[in-house]
Parts: sequence; C-alpha cells; structure tokens
Amino acid sequence: MAPRGLSAGSDVERLIQLLARLPGLGPRSARRAALALIRRRDTLMAPLGDAIHAVLETITECQECGNVDSQNPCTICTNGERDNQLICVVESVADLWALERAGAIQGHYHVLGGALSAIDGVGPDDLRIPDLVRRAARAREVILALSATVDGQTTAHYIADSLEESNVILSRLAHGVPVGGELDYMDEGTLTTAIRARRPMNGGTGVNAE
Amino acid sequence: MAPRGLSAGSDVERLIQLLARLPGLGPRSARRAALALIRRRDTLMAPLGDAIHAVLETITECQECGNVDSQNPCTICTNGERDNQLICVVESVADLWALERAGAIQGHYHVLGGALSAIDGVGPDDLRIPDLVRRAARAREVILALSATVDGQTTAHYIADSLEESNVILSRLAHGVPVGGELDYMDEGTLTTAIRARRPMNGGTGVNAE
Repeated sequence: MAPRGLSAGSDVERLIQLLARLPGLGPRSARRAALALIRRRDTLMAPLGDAIHAVLETITECQECGNVDSQNPCTICTNGERDNQLICVVESVADLWALERAGAIQGHYHVLGGALSAIDGVGPDDLRIPDLVRRAARAREVILALSATVDGQTTAHYIADSLEESNVILSRLAHGVPVGGELDYMDEGTLTTAIRARRPMNGGTGVNAE
Repeated sequence: MAPRGLSAGSDVERLIQLLARLPGLGPRSARRAALALIRRRDTLMAPLGDAIHAVLETITECQECGNVDSQNPCTICTNGERDNQLICVVESVADLWALERAGAIQGHYHVLGGALSAIDGVGPDDLRIPDLVRRAARAREVILALSATVDGQTTAHYIADSLEESNVILSRLAHGVPVGGELDYMDEGTLTTAIRARRPMNGGTGVNAE
C-alpha cells in the first residue's frame, strides 16, 4: 500500500510501514500520521525522533518488579515513602500505569508479563511467578490486580496455590458494577457478582461472604 | 495523564505526549503505542527512530508540484514517462498518494496545500494557485481532483476563473455512486447527481449534460 509516486524503499514508505505497526494505527492512519509528522517536522517529527532515541538510551526493565523506567530498580521500588510490605500483582506495565494514575496503590508492584493462557500457550514459566514467590516471602500483603477474565482468574488461582505455604495475606480486586455504570448496560455475570458481594450501608463488613 | 510512577518530565512521558499528537492517537492509545515501542525496542522502536531521522534528513517539498519526496523536483515531476502536459490539482499530499495508489493519473500533480475556506480563513494567497496558473500555461489539460465539499467546489470555481484566459482544457472528477456503494446508503445529493449525470450503456457520451 506504499504510494507509487515515491521511489520503492524510500524513507517515507519505511516510516509509514513502521507507524502502521503501532497499536491503534492501520495503513491509512499511518499515512496520515506520517504526513502530520512531515508537515510539522520541527515541532513534532524532530522532537519525536529525539524522544525515541532518549527512551532507547535510558529505558530499562526493573529487575525487581518488571516496570519500565530510566533507572533499575525503578523509581517505585526505590521510593522510601511507599510500603515495601505491600505488593500489587499486575499483568502488564499498562495496568501498573493505570493503577498509578488512580493513585490507588501506596506499595510496590509486580509485573507478571501476561496471564496464563492455554490458547496462547502461556505457561507459568513464561510469567514472573517464581520472582513473585521470592518477593512475597518478605511481604505482608499481596493484592492480585488481574483481569476479570478467564485467563486472569486462572492466573490468580495459580498464584494463590503458589503462595499457599507463605504467611502472606492474599487479596484480589473487588468485582461489581463500575463507578458510573448503569445497571441495564451490565452483563448478568457482573450483576450476579455485585449482588452476592453486596455491602451493608450502616457499617460492618460484607453481608454475604462471597 | 502521565503515569505518576515515572519521574516528572521523564523520557517515556515525553514520548507519550508526542505520540498523542499524531492524528488517530489519543492519550490512551499513545500510552499503548509507547508500551508497544518499549516492548519491541529492537524490532520497532529503534527502526522507527532511524526512519524518522532518515526522513528528517532527506525529505523536502517539491518546488514544482508541492509533493514531499527525497528529491526536489520530486520523482513524479522528473519522471520522463509521465505526461507533463497533464496536471492533476489536489488539495493535499494525502490526496496525491491516494491517486497514485489507484494509478489513475499518468501525468503530473499540483498540490494546493488545502482548499479555500471562509470559516478557516484560508484565502487564495494561502494556496499555491499562482504557481498553478503559471504551470497551466504550458499544459494541455488540468484535472481538478478536489473534494466534493463546499470548500473543494468553491476552490474549483476559483481556479476555473483564474484559468479562464488560458487555453488549457479544464476538467473535474466525476461525481456519482462510489464503486461498491449500495444505493440505500447513499445521501440524496449523491443520488440526484448520479441520476443527472447518468451514462448511456450502448456507446456515446452522456445522456444528459450535467
């Protein structure tokens, strides 16, 4: 789908092909993005090239938690104000970023690098579960912030089994109606879960143990 | 919307902000794109950085037709096999690329750099119309391949007036039902135009002069 008017293998063609491999961009939007870059070469293309090279030079994976950052161990793992006895387990760095935006976790993280999946052939050895077992031995609580999907929940059960012999408190995210969600748009599984895990409104803990 | 876990002003944050300025990417997809780049640093991020720098170094605007290419005049303007008496006028380089993909034009192009627009404050001096008048003096035919919008058609009429004193043949794209289009999805303007400009099926030219 390269523009025929440009000589084969030209730089622009290559730029379009690479942009098209980004998630969210197809061949058509990659062409639009390339043209936007060319039109704004000083204000957008040059800074983007510089930013990519800066990230290439500095970014690394935290050997402790699996986060990506310009330092190893990362700024979260080395932050003395965070509770290093609390480990929140996530599937991906994107999930870590989402929880950080919410400001919901005052502790550390552990990025698994995916979820167990029979279909995709992802087994326990492909995830950073042995590292988690090692880290959990020194922790007070492990929160499993995994997707509410079959793969995510399979992974959660596998981790629960792996941590059975440790004394760590194991918890998982609450399931229920999302904040702002309208009931008639919710699927039946979410509604059933939200009713079963209903909370009292006059103090106390759960009415019904789920 | 930067991830709090990364130090303020970090390289990753800057990469996300720049990616979010590409058409087709918002803040969320820019984060996904940045993570995809970091995950595939050798196969995607490094080549993309190189491609951007290669384009920055080589790409230039053709002073003849306004195309972007690694040479000036561009490969289309210097291609001896193309009809240099035929000039196809387009609004943008994206439109030029679209026509080149179709292989529909065997001549040269002229990129206006937009269309006349009272709302956006684009006047004749903002477009490359004087250049077109100069080039048209040496051409046999000028095809106006402009958008079928109010702005595009206003621009077409303005160019027609500008070329009135030249002897060039002036034509415009046919309007009608797009190939593959289903009638009940077409708007009334398209259907009316397609009926008015109907073509005979047993030879000859148009049944009805539009």
